[in-house]
Amino acid sequence: MSQSLDIAVVGATGTVGETIVQLLDEREFPVGTLHLLAGSASAGQSVPFRGKNLRVRELADFDFSQVRLAFFCAGEAISRASALKAQAAGCSVIDLSAGLSLQQAPRLVPEANAELLATLKAPYLLASPVPVVAALALVLAPLRARLDLQKVTLTAALAVSSQGRGGIAELAKQTTELLNMRPLEPKVFDQQIAFNLLARVGGLEEGGHAVLERRVADELKQVLALPALRVSATCVQAPVFFGDSLAISLQAAQPVDVAGAAQGLEAQAGIELVEAGDYPSVVSDAVGQDEVYVGRLRAGLDDPAELNLWIASDNARKGSALNAVQIAELLIKHYL
Amino acid sequence: MSQSLDIAVVGATGTVGETIVQLLDEREFPVGTLHLLAGSASAGQSVPFRGKNLRVRELADFDFSQVRLAFFCAGEAISRASALKAQAAGCSVIDLSAGLSLQQAPRLVPEANAELLATLKAPYLLASPVPVVAALALVLAPLRARLDLQKVTLTAALAVSSQGRGGIAELAKQTTELLNMRPLEPKVFDQQIAFNLLARVGGLEEGGHAVLERRVADELKQVLALPALRVSATCVQAPVFFGDSLAISLQAAQPVDVAGAAQGLEAQAGIELVEAGDYPSVVSDAVGQDEVYVGRLRAGLDDPAELNLWIASDNARKGSALNAVQIAELLIKHYL
Repeated sequence: MSQSLDIAVVGATGTVGETIVQLLDEREFPVGTLHLLAGSASAGQSVPFRGKNLRVRELADFDFSQVRLAFFCAGEAISRASALKAQAAGCSVIDLSAGLSLQQAPRLVPEANAELLATLKAPYLLASPVPVVAALALVLAPLRARLDLQKVTLTAALAVSSQGRGGIAELAKQTTELLNMRPLEPKVFDQQIAFNLLARVGGLEEGGHAVLERRVADELKQVLALPALRVSATCVQAPVFFGDSLAISLQAAQPVDVAGAAQGLEAQAGIELVEAGDYPSVVSDAVGQDEVYVGRLRAGLDDPAELNLWIASDNARKGSALNAVQIAELLIKHYL
Repeated sequence: MSQSLDIAVVGATGTVGETIVQLLDEREFPVGTLHLLAGSASAGQSVPFRGKNLRVRELADFDFSQVRLAFFCAGEAISRASALKAQAAGCSVIDLSAGLSLQQAPRLVPEANAELLATLKAPYLLASPVPVVAALALVLAPLRARLDLQKVTLTAALAVSSQGRGGIAELAKQTTELLNMRPLEPKVFDQQIAFNLLARVGGLEEGGHAVLERRVADELKQVLALPALRVSATCVQAPVFFGDSLAISLQAAQPVDVAGAAQGLEAQAGIELVEAGDYPSVVSDAVGQDEVYVGRLRAGLDDPAELNLWIASDNARKGSALNAVQIAELLIKHYL
């Protein structure tokens, strides 16, 4: 284990970048020098870290051979343009952008597939999966062998914060305008998001699946190391500011022992299983918390080999920044 | 076919009752005398019908032998107390309360199981299913034989209007108070509903299923006449005023012909299938419309025998009042 690590955060002024900086501090990560980087529009701003204000510098001028580890959370294009260069300069990369393929940058959720790292070599090029997969893989990790998992059917209701600050602003503005009977002009979303549910998040591919739905399926199979798992995903935009809600139906190979599944979930670090009869929600439970909340655990109505559950998770915590920092903790403990 | 029918509406001052009265007018139903009934708190109010204001009378004083048909939409307790008495007085009943068992009052969605009426005798005791089932059965009716349907997995996001005027008022009030930074006191819902998703609608039964989820499964199987169908249902309360949104995953016996399924949906009266690439929402499309909107039709990502789709439906129209009036139209055409 290294004593401390010089680190870069690319996209330090975005919501995810800010949360990473905050978590490195809170979790007492052994940071040597912290380099905060962003595009020219944000360079010059300052971000607090351990009682000091660090100045954000321009990514274009940065030499990645100065650091051992970099978080990339500035969007897909920036990761595609710079992550491989950073790795070539000897810097391990944890990408949060979804801009790199599963072959280039394997997805990692430490609770589910930490052992993957033993098959790779430094400098590493790794990625945190999309927020839905980080939360879901954590919940399925203690269930996959127990259930001999065949299929996962999920409806994911995503917070508007999944579209960044613009998504948050649009929900707030539309809600206010509707309550004041003023007309709306959707910008970030293609339909009114206030008091509505939108059945498409991002672009569609041929065949009608959202790119995000395909990504959820592919990343989940990689992280769970279950290439033959069948995944059916519907991603929906909900009029919720923060936190993702997931309705999950699992198909097992045999009748499910629900009490045993509950024990498996309770024993898993990072999960909070709420009492039977209660249920978690993003507003009351998950937002601002590191834990992923699970409830409504129940067998199928008609099918004893089915297990259903509900997940509420902070899309900015385990969904992205926390999972990325946990990958970094795993790297520094065993590999860097 | 009768020339015209004397009719009672029990619960005439509620949202569903008002919509029934409006639809009887709009659809030129051959109404003789219309008797509007309610509890003592609402008796004395008046409701417009065909240009006149009809006075609402007290249910307790009403003699059901005066009418040939009654709609019951005043809640489960009132249907349990009075629907069988009305039938015994010679009046056919269409119940909208979910208060009667499937054996007492078979669920009917005319597009799906009109033929059930031929096996029954007047005076009829029938029920319109819960709104989710009315919309879903309409959509599945043209697909069930085509797909040899094995399993339906659904996540239903219900509007707060499913909890009546109190649900609507609570979402509006909570939203305003949050935007003004004032504290909340949930009353109708057990957690904050504004900008949140609640994973439980109504009470739970042993085993953790909501009573409503069991009802959705049982009613769907009855209406589709598929007793061996497996149903996995999760019902969620969404911060949406009007209209239900359903994410549906269907398991077929063989690989699905998606284009053929689309043709089947297009040919079905009462369904509006939106163009591929687009998707319907409750706010932009469904609310105030008789049609049930369908979109996001696509095969499974990993399973060619899977068909996924999205439904947006007005819970007060096809979901309840319209379906009940369509049952009445079927009765008067062939049976009364």
